[in-house]
Amino acid sequence: MPATPAWPPKSAPRLFVEQMLGEGLQISIEGPQAHYLARVMRVGPGDAVILCDNTTGEWAARVADAGKRDVLLTAETLLRPREAVPDFTLCAALLKKDRFDLVLEKACELGVARIQPVLTRRCVADKLNLERARAILTEAAEQCARTALPELLAPVKLDALLRDWEANRTLFFADENGGGPAASAFAANNGPAALLTGPEGGFDEAERTAIRALPQARPITLGPRILRGETAVIAATALWMGTRGDWTAPA
Amino acid sequence: MPATPAWPPKSAPRLFVEQMLGEGLQISIEGPQAHYLARVMRVGPGDAVILCDNTTGEWAARVADAGKRDVLLTAETLLRPREAVPDFTLCAALLKKDRFDLVLEKACELGVARIQPVLTRRCVADKLNLERARAILTEAAEQCARTALPELLAPVKLDALLRDWEANRTLFFADENGGGPAASAFAANNGPAALLTGPEGGFDEAERTAIRALPQARPITLGPRILRGETAVIAATALWMGTRGDWTAPA
Repeated sequence: MPATPAWPPKSAPRLFVEQMLGEGLQISIEGPQAHYLARVMRVGPGDAVILCDNTTGEWAARVADAGKRDVLLTAETLLRPREAVPDFTLCAALLKKDRFDLVLEKACELGVARIQPVLTRRCVADKLNLERARAILTEAAEQCARTALPELLAPVKLDALLRDWEANRTLFFADENGGGPAASAFAANNGPAALLTGPEGGFDEAERTAIRALPQARPITLGPRILRGETAVIAATALWMGTRGDWTAPA
Repeated sequence: MPATPAWPPKSAPRLFVEQMLGEGLQISIEGPQAHYLARVMRVGPGDAVILCDNTTGEWAARVADAGKRDVLLTAETLLRPREAVPDFTLCAALLKKDRFDLVLEKACELGVARIQPVLTRRCVADKLNLERARAILTEAAEQCARTALPELLAPVKLDALLRDWEANRTLFFADENGGGPAASAFAANNGPAALLTGPEGGFDEAERTAIRALPQARPITLGPRILRGETAVIAATALWMGTRGDWTAPA
């Protein structure tokens, strides 16, 4: 007897949709997502699509009809409830566009819960297209099979960030002028966490003083080499996820 | 009395040169490096340049003459001997060009000692321009103030890599089908280390079996999300450097 093929197959396209999903619900996909399904992935009636709604979780859906303009799907089975991602906020100074795009993509893959872009004195970039940034995050989530989208907040100035800091959230501050070894600092601080990283030219002296004055701040070092802005984000996030986040359970 | 300005200034250009450096030695810079110094950085006689030779270390040098075609420098003072980087070999499956460029740049910044590109069955890319790759590594080393260039080896096939594996080097294998938590595996294995990561489509079953059969292999997991090839490289390298490499000393 041949083995029953896995349903949905691993190769099924994954998509986030706006609509909340439920068993038997019909979903109509339009625009670029319909183009992707019908033209790029060439789905037809009966084919599997994996849908996420960022609320209930991940669903197996089946194509009912694939037209030129829209694709009609039926949600069938809840595959996984929306995952709980570790409570880690990335407070990253804005970087030049292509470098910040990389930060968004990698932060999503690595498991960051929310991203708070920060404006500092030496930031070269001072604007972020939130819609475009959300599209990058959604695509990364589809790619890495995350069922929870990272929350993206509008950029804030550093002084506002520090002024409104949550009482019980540790702020690991990647200070290029030195601090404690990152792994030890992570090990010594339980609970909600955040990482603050600087722009291309680093923080200025007044900013460094203000950050260090925050009782929740823990200056950390990421080794003897000078890391680019986006490298510091990715490296420190990976180190936190690997030691305090959700990479510590055997797979 | 005004403070003596720091010499060489932090903003001085940094360059790797082929010639071995020594006190009082004259160095003639030509080609693109001369263009960079004279036209981009606009150095003139008396200005500081920081030179590295990947053998003795990092030197403060002074511009003697800056012409249209070449720049003449005199090496003055050894600032730092060539650094000892942690004994960590990155065995990364070749990825598409722009993603592998990122692997090279980030591996250098993070502190990898040597890079061994690997060819596997599902590799989309099968060639690496070594000269171009070395230029990326050198530029990253200049940027991050590394005094030791990462060694770059010519690509090898996976079976040859496993056949000739060093007896005392642990091979951490980023296995998308699961393994022990990476941080615990790193903590349990002292000594020379290496990381093996797969191509865009992962390793195939026969490859996974062959890797796991190597006594020095330790399958590791990098969390519940599916990481892109270059993300797995950067994340696992950062986690190793932060827990076993040279990021553990206070700065």
